[in-house]
Amino acid sequence: MGGGEIEKSENFELGRKIGFLIAKEGWILLNGGRNSGIMEATAMGAKEAGGLTIGILPGDDLSWASRYIDIPILTGIGYARNYINVQTSEVVVALPGRSGTISEIALALNIGKKVISLKFELGELFKRYEKEEQLIYANNPEDVITLIKDILEKKKGWEI
Amino acid sequence: MGGGEIEKSENFELGRKIGFLIAKEGWILLNGGRNSGIMEATAMGAKEAGGLTIGILPGDDLSWASRYIDIPILTGIGYARNYINVQTSEVVVALPGRSGTISEIALALNIGKKVISLKFELGELFKRYEKEEQLIYANNPEDVITLIKDILEKKKGWEI
Amino acid sequence: MGGGEIEKSENFELGRKIGFLIAKEGWILLNGGRNSGIMEATAMGAKEAGGLTIGILPGDDLSWASRYIDIPILTGIGYARNYINVQTSEVVVALPGRSGTISEIALALNIGKKVISLKFELGELFKRYEKEEQLIYANNPEDVITLIKDILEKKKGWEI
Amino acid sequence: MGGGEIEKSENFELGRKIGFLIAKEGWILLNGGRNSGIMEATAMGAKEAGGLTIGILPGDDLSWASRYIDIPILTGIGYARNYINVQTSEVVVALPGRSGTISEIALALNIGKKVISLKFELGELFKRYEKEEQLIYANNPEDVITLIKDILEKKKGWEI
Repeated sequence: MGGGEIEKSENFELGRKIGFLIAKEGWILLNGGRNSGIMEATAMGAKEAGGLTIGILPGDDLSWASRYIDIPILTGIGYARNYINVQTSEVVVALPGRSGTISEIALALNIGKKVISLKFELGELFKRYEKEEQLIYANNPEDVITLIKDILEKKKGWEI
Repeated sequence: MGGGEIEKSENFELGRKIGFLIAKEGWILLNGGRNSGIMEATAMGAKEAGGLTIGILPGDDLSWASRYIDIPILTGIGYARNYINVQTSEVVVALPGRSGTISEIALALNIGKKVISLKFELGELFKRYEKEEQLIYANNPEDVITLIKDILEKKKGWEI
Repeated sequence: MGGGEIEKSENFELGRKIGFLIAKEGWILLNGGRNSGIMEATAMGAKEAGGLTIGILPGDDLSWASRYIDIPILTGIGYARNYINVQTSEVVVALPGRSGTISEIALALNIGKKVISLKFELGELFKRYEKEEQLIYANNPEDVITLIKDILEKKKGWEI
Repeated sequence: MGGGEIEKSENFELGRKIGFLIAKEGWILLNGGRNSGIMEATAMGAKEAGGLTIGILPGDDLSWASRYIDIPILTGIGYARNYINVQTSEVVVALPGRSGTISEIALALNIGKKVISLKFELGELFKRYEKEEQLIYANNPEDVITLIKDILEKKKGWEI
C-alpha cells in the first residue's frame, strides 16, 4: 500500500523494488490497482520479476487500472475497497502515502493484520501497535522480505 | 454464477464442464469462491484444464474457499460481494441456483453486463432483457463458449 | 423496494399509498433514496402521513436524493448498497421494478428476510420461497400493512 | 467517531457532552452504532438532549446496537462501513480512539471531509491536513460546535 501520488521520485524506485522482490519470492502482489504512484510502481516491479499482480480498484472502469496489473478486480464500491485490500493481503507492506494509505494501515491493524512500514514514519499515533509488534518498521526492501518470511512461517498461508 | 447448493448431480458436472471450457480458452474463471456447489464445480473444472481461478468470498475466512481457487479475494463485506462478482466479470454465465444466483443475474443486468444462462430458466420476469439480447439462453456448454466469444469480439477486454 | 423508473402511472400512486400507510403505523420508511420512481413515490407518501424516511443512496452525491427523504445515507458503494437496504429492513415490500428491484428481492430472500410483493408477479423462479411463505403476495396496500403486522408480531423489532 | 473501547473515563463524559451539544443544535448524530465506548457515549448524550441518532453498524445483528440509537443501519459489510460513516457525515468529529477511529479520520480526509479533533492528537502524520485546515483541533466541546457552525455556513447542508 502506498500513495497514488508520489512526492519523491526515489519512492517510485522503492515501490518498484518491493514489487520486484515480492514477485521473486513467488508471492502474489496485491495493491489498489491504479495506474499511478506506488500502485503503478509495485505492479511494474512485480511484472519485471515475472510475477502475478492483482489490483483491487475502487471503480468499475478498467481505464483506471495500471497496465502492470494482471487481474483487475472492479469493486465499484469506492474507497470502501481499502478494507478488501487489507482483508485479502496476508501481510500488508506500507510505503509513503497520504490519507488513503493511512486508512489502509489503520484498517489492517484494526482487523489484526501485520503491517510492515518502509520509509513511512507513522509516529506516536501508532506506537501501541509498534510495541505489540503488529506494526514493524523495516530499513530497506530486503528487510521487508525477511520480515514477511518470518510472519508467513508462523501462519498457514494459501497455497495455489 | 450458480447455486452454493446443488440439487441435481448433473448440475455439478455441468459446472465442471463450463469451468473446463472457460480455462481451455485461456480465460480466467471468476466465481464466488466457496467450497460448495457450482462454485466448487466450476473451479475444479478450470483447474483440470490448467486455468487460473479467482474466488470473491463474502467473508474473511480462508476456510470457506474452495481448494480449486487460486486467488481468494476476502472481501469481508458479506453478500454485498455479489456486486463485485458481476462488476469484475467480462461476461456472466448463470447456472442453476437460488436467490443468491438470481441476485447476481439481476445485479449484472442492472449494470449492463451480458448474462448467458445455461439450464436456468428465468421466465417472464426477465423477458425484457431476453428481448434486448442482454440475457441469452444457451443450450449446452459449447454454446456458452461460442456466445462468450461473440460478446468479447465486440468489446475490448483486459489483456494480461 | 421498487423501480427507479415507473412504467404505469398507477404504480406511482401505489407507492405513495404504501408509503403513506407505513408512516401512519408509526413505522420508518426505508428505501433506495433516489428522486425517481417508486423511491420518490413511497417517500412522498410517508411524508404526507408525517412519517420519517431514510434513503440508502448508491453514491456520495446529495443531489440524487429525493426531497422527501429525511435521512440520506450516502454509501458511496454503488449498487452494493442494495444489500444494506434489505439487511436493514425489518420487512421488505416489493413493488413493480426491473433488475434492481429483483436483485433486492433476491438478496432479501437470501438472508432470510420476509418479502411482501404487491402487483409484482415474480413467477415460477421464486415459487420455492412462496411455498415456504418467505415470499408473500398481497392484493392491495391495506393487505401489505396487515401482513407486516403479522410478521412483526412474531419477531422482536427495534423500538426507538 | 471515537474508540469502541474507552481508556479514560473522562472520555466517556466527553463523548456524552459532544452528543448532547450536537443534538441541542437540532443536528442528527451519526456514529458507528455500537453499544460501547464513544459510540454509546455520544448516542446517550444526544438522546438526553432529545435528539435523533443513527448508527451505521458493521454487522447484521441488532444486539450490537446501542439502545441510544434510534435508527440502526445494518450494513453487513464489516468495517468497510467506516467509509459510509464518513461519507454520510456532513462534518466528522474525532474523539480519542485506536486504529478504527484513525481509519475513519483518514477516510474522511481522503474524500475531502472536514475533521474536527477533540483531545485526540494525530501528530506529524496528519500535519498536511492541519495546514490546509481540513483537520482542525478543538479545545473543548463548545469549540467543536462553533467550528461545525462555521463549516456548515459555507456549505449547503441537507434540510429535513
